[in-house]
Amino acid sequence: MRKITTVAALLACAASAPLAAKEGMFTPQQLPEIADDLRETGLEIDPEALTDLTGFPMGAIVSLGGCSASFVSPAGLVVTNHHCARGSVQYNSTAENNYLVDGFLAKATADELPAAPGSRIYVTTALTDVTQRMREGTEALSPTERYETVEQRMKDITAECEQKAGYRCQVASFYGGAEYTLIERLEVRDVRLVYAPADSIGKYGGDIDNWMWPRHTGDFAFYRAYVAPDGSAADYAEENVPYQPEHHLKVSAGGLKEGDFVMAAGYPGSTSRYATLAEVENTFSWSYPTYVTLLNEWIDTIEEAAPEGSDARVKYESLLAGLNNFEKNTRGQLEGARRVGLVDLRREREEALAGWIAADGSRAAYGEAIAGLQALSQESAEAAQEAFWYGFATRPALLSAAQRLYRLAHERQKPDAEREPGFQERDMTFFRQGLQALDRRYEASVDKAQWMLFLDSYLDQPAENRVAVFDNALGLTGQIDEAILSAKLDAYYAGTSLDDAETRLSLMDATPEDLEASDDPFMQLAVALYEYERGLEAESEERSGRALALRPGYMEAITQWQRSQGLATYPDANSTLRVTYGTVLGGSPKDGMAYMPFTTLEGITEKDTGEEPFNAPERQLQEIREKDYGKYYSPEVGSVPVNFLSDLDSTGGNSGSATLNARAELVGLLFDGTFESVNSDWHFDPRTTRTIHVDTRYMLWVMDKVDGAQGLIEEMDVVE
Amino acid sequence: MRKITTVAALLACAASAPLAAKEGMFTPQQLPEIADDLRETGLEIDPEALTDLTGFPMGAIVSLGGCSASFVSPAGLVVTNHHCARGSVQYNSTAENNYLVDGFLAKATADELPAAPGSRIYVTTALTDVTQRMREGTEALSPTERYETVEQRMKDITAECEQKAGYRCQVASFYGGAEYTLIERLEVRDVRLVYAPADSIGKYGGDIDNWMWPRHTGDFAFYRAYVAPDGSAADYAEENVPYQPEHHLKVSAGGLKEGDFVMAAGYPGSTSRYATLAEVENTFSWSYPTYVTLLNEWIDTIEEAAPEGSDARVKYESLLAGLNNFEKNTRGQLEGARRVGLVDLRREREEALAGWIAADGSRAAYGEAIAGLQALSQESAEAAQEAFWYGFATRPALLSAAQRLYRLAHERQKPDAEREPGFQERDMTFFRQGLQALDRRYEASVDKAQWMLFLDSYLDQPAENRVAVFDNALGLTGQIDEAILSAKLDAYYAGTSLDDAETRLSLMDATPEDLEASDDPFMQLAVALYEYERGLEAESEERSGRALALRPGYMEAITQWQRSQGLATYPDANSTLRVTYGTVLGGSPKDGMAYMPFTTLEGITEKDTGEEPFNAPERQLQEIREKDYGKYYSPEVGSVPVNFLSDLDSTGGNSGSATLNARAELVGLLFDGTFESVNSDWHFDPRTTRTIHVDTRYMLWVMDKVDGAQGLIEEMDVVE
Repeated sequence: MRKITTVAALLACAASAPLAAKEGMFTPQQLPEIADDLRETGLEIDPEALTDLTGFPMGAIVSLGGCSASFVSPAGLVVTNHHCARGSVQYNSTAENNYLVDGFLAKATADELPAAPGSRIYVTTALTDVTQRMREGTEALSPTERYETVEQRMKDITAECEQKAGYRCQVASFYGGAEYTLIERLEVRDVRLVYAPADSIGKYGGDIDNWMWPRHTGDFAFYRAYVAPDGSAADYAEENVPYQPEHHLKVSAGGLKEGDFVMAAGYPGSTSRYATLAEVENTFSWSYPTYVTLLNEWIDTIEEAAPEGSDARVKYESLLAGLNNFEKNTRGQLEGARRVGLVDLRREREEALAGWIAADGSRAAYGEAIAGLQALSQESAEAAQEAFWYGFATRPALLSAAQRLYRLAHERQKPDAEREPGFQERDMTFFRQGLQALDRRYEASVDKAQWMLFLDSYLDQPAENRVAVFDNALGLTGQIDEAILSAKLDAYYAGTSLDDAETRLSLMDATPEDLEASDDPFMQLAVALYEYERGLEAESEERSGRALALRPGYMEAITQWQRSQGLATYPDANSTLRVTYGTVLGGSPKDGMAYMPFTTLEGITEKDTGEEPFNAPERQLQEIREKDYGKYYSPEVGSVPVNFLSDLDSTGGNSGSATLNARAELVGLLFDGTFESVNSDWHFDPRTTRTIHVDTRYMLWVMDKVDGAQGLIEEMDVVE
Repeated sequence: MRKITTVAALLACAASAPLAAKEGMFTPQQLPEIADDLRETGLEIDPEALTDLTGFPMGAIVSLGGCSASFVSPAGLVVTNHHCARGSVQYNSTAENNYLVDGFLAKATADELPAAPGSRIYVTTALTDVTQRMREGTEALSPTERYETVEQRMKDITAECEQKAGYRCQVASFYGGAEYTLIERLEVRDVRLVYAPADSIGKYGGDIDNWMWPRHTGDFAFYRAYVAPDGSAADYAEENVPYQPEHHLKVSAGGLKEGDFVMAAGYPGSTSRYATLAEVENTFSWSYPTYVTLLNEWIDTIEEAAPEGSDARVKYESLLAGLNNFEKNTRGQLEGARRVGLVDLRREREEALAGWIAADGSRAAYGEAIAGLQALSQESAEAAQEAFWYGFATRPALLSAAQRLYRLAHERQKPDAEREPGFQERDMTFFRQGLQALDRRYEASVDKAQWMLFLDSYLDQPAENRVAVFDNALGLTGQIDEAILSAKLDAYYAGTSLDDAETRLSLMDATPEDLEASDDPFMQLAVALYEYERGLEAESEERSGRALALRPGYMEAITQWQRSQGLATYPDANSTLRVTYGTVLGGSPKDGMAYMPFTTLEGITEKDTGEEPFNAPERQLQEIREKDYGKYYSPEVGSVPVNFLSDLDSTGGNSGSATLNARAELVGLLFDGTFESVNSDWHFDPRTTRTIHVDTRYMLWVMDKVDGAQGLIEEMDVVE
């Protein structure tokens, strides 16, 4: 009964909450443009402050590469999502000390553990507009020349920037190549694991609750950034010291309620808000439905080839989790697109844009760019469909390794500055780690089962999409039954030595001739496919070169058209630092039901079955039963809030983003979107788009009451 | 955005709604006891009126046997759920005229179609307390004698009552045999189908939405009761005329909003609110988990043996739907029991009851009854577990038919009054229909696949539960592999002639000797098992006889104990007429989410995929897109309400129940409970128990705007 009053009372509050979700992933530089709305929505600090990447609060915001994070102490303490740091927990776990099961808490800094190989903390220190240098004179070039020129300039600018030791630089393209920004980031290479709650808190709900609300996941963990004693970035070394960031966030235990202003700063990966009708149609009528079918077969294949409890399964857990995540997300996108009528919406947008262009003769050039882009989108979609099953048919792990090695052998014959991105000296650390890590994710029998699945689909498709060089190399001619195919593949796995990490690493120094002389069947296949793939690449680059000329015109048309309606245009997400703002807000994702803005501790006991993924630690359940809320109690929800919803605009890559209140204090960590939101990658629907955060009050409660992490709480500036 | 305000506004209303759900399925006679609360909750008519079964409104409430219904016109028009009348729609459908797909609407009364064989409308005309006659002197008897005496008296009282032509009578037991009521019902045997919307409205959401909220099912259909020209009940005949009920319900189009009083009158089937701890433990730790596993295997077995699209599948659709429904319900009950801690709750109740008994020496007899009942419950649970797999192993359709026929042959040697219930002359119509209908639900290959599944489990269980006579008859000795077992069963299907309906029907006149001489393998097996099964039956009757002495004491203890706390005790559901009341009410079934009290037309377009079961008729989608709400618009929900939630106390059998407002006007039809509610069969949790209704405004809107059933609207008394 109490619950019913709570529902009513809570949602009564919603009446005073803002009604419009705020679409937009804004670059820091754009924020002055929308300063008025930021203030109106509730921001209390000066919006200008958000444009200064080395000032407060942006100086505290960092990237982990794929995830977002932030500094929360003057001694380099970094908070991010549990799912972003989990690889490091797993890396440090053994059968005896399984930190995934028990959680990990360093008693002192000396006990902090090295994060998984390749872990990085990137601190963005400067953004420089390099549009002029990147685009100058490229319009006159042929598409292929244009593509190559742009790529070469990117490499040159990056190389110049990386003269500064310890920095990692990147030239990011905005608005489809209309603008370019050089991003300079300090690369912290000594990253250590400080604290991660057990999976039974940090991954509570697991795959079942993934993308779902109501949610009760304690998706937080702590790293610490270490640097050499002189303050420079350095590889792991015992004498390294905690990095001292210029700025760190205060952590709020003061409470948040529905309707409160929140913003998140992070690194969203990719969105397609400005995709053309042809791209949308191809994606939703072909790619995504094809993927959903394939992903389900793929998951079944792995589960059958690597049964639960087997050693092989351990190696494929991470791929399986990724495939399941992708499948659920793709299904959600298809559902969302159907619900909002995405294709019709895009058609209407293009018609309206065409109308705006036609209304003024001076806009004719836009029309030409758009027509060209539509034709190109169609052509790209057809090329993607043609190559789709060939792409999967060439996906065996050791074939991919062989292809990368043979490519490297070729690239290494060029001066470093001229090599393809990914094959330059600056890429070799990750290249080597990739070759090494393969062992932990590879089992021949499972790899073969996947290959069989992909080849079945490859063979089933229309004959014109078959690739002769591939068919000949594999002997895929005449009638091929499963037994024949299976025997052919067996010969690959029996004859290869690329399943040995030392062998793979040693081949990083080989010449093309060395590899061409190899009798390894996967290497022979890689050599056989090389020229064909270069041809595909050249075609793709030619299309990209055309897009580089067309898309900026399209984006300028969109921008001008939106400006004429008083709307700001923000660039699609591209893994660069963005700010999104809005309010804590429940919602009605479906007719007849509502999401409350907060979940509570009691929801954990309610969900708990004692079985993974609903197996909260007994100590935690005990504290909840005893209502030991401490100072983290929220009168609005009648308990400690666990997760909350907002209308922020986020996507993959935003995971771990600091969620800030009006005073830029940390009130939570962004970690997911609702199932009904995932289509926001294509279309932001204010009714259904909701982002999920873990509340700092829950984080502090777990640290205080469950995991005994009072030391960390003291290290942070916790404010009421 | 509009939706968000609507959510807030709607749930703000909830603040003024009653906070306590009303537990209780009250007999009409009990209502004066709770008259004050009925008035306080909002009932505007005199509560006394509800006790008069031949007055208004109860005279309008009828049973279909398994479903509930009500008269809605002076010409015998009956409204019930689509899923209650769907068998009649199916029965009248052909490949050319598929009313399941197209819906059915009789243009005139002459076009109304006979309902499926066995369809009945039962109008309860009198309730008589027969406790004294039923119980007198039974306490002194042995358990078996007590059971037999009670059974014989039931048959005698029923037979006397059925002297009145056209009436069907029943002696119902309340409070576990503490009270008995003779129920006299007019049995309308000429039932005709008047109107049923297409499955794409009436079964919208199908199995996926079954037990779920939000819901958008147009679960309504209309029958008409026909009688002989002289007004007496009669079999179908062309000259029959519509029955003229003394009372019928007015149909409200006037609107209902959250917090409004509603009540439902109907025939709930069975609940276990007073089950003992031993019963609860056995059910939730053994029976239900075992069922969930079995049901999933069973469903898989049928789906494999009768693939989608096959002729066999058609015959098993109805069983499959039932198994899926049962599986989902059982899973929901297990989840609900875990959520509320059912076993602990029952343990606490029994401890509290024991404390109350111990507090007063005069209550000692209660304690003895309870101790005896607990021991008996335990014994019954063990017997049920022992016989569980034997029960399934003897489930082949033709074996069941043979067993019923051989039993009938024996029973027919006794005078009618002494025969077992189910084998008396009054039962022969349904007996014959059952034998006939078997053809439409039987395919040897599927039946065999099921039998194999059940035998596998039977053979897997501990040896002490094996039944020697069954093992010997089937030759289940030594090592039995699948091939041997399969060959054994093949001989049954090859050798039987019971798969022929004429053969089965002809055997209704056979003597035991005739059947014992039969060379039909199923009949031989039935004969072989006969004595063993009579032994099981005698044991069961002995336990029932003991329960008849013990349970009334237990129920009296509960009643006195509850009375001491000011609580009324109502009997468990037993398919007799009950009244439940409460309010239109959303709720929070889970932490972090809320159910809105109403769904809307727009929810249909939102869910619609164009594919079954989300394939609303194009005409309907068009009307919704055009917002053609007509006079059925609700300002509270901003559309036409489709389904609504209440806190009424209902269970299976309540389907089709008239949902009445404070003035006893029809505002909806009860048709389902939410997934989180199904455990209310054991424990009424006011937080989660919600009953789902179809709103009369949606019914009228569909009739008016989609199906052109204006004639029926005119026939009814539609009030604002």
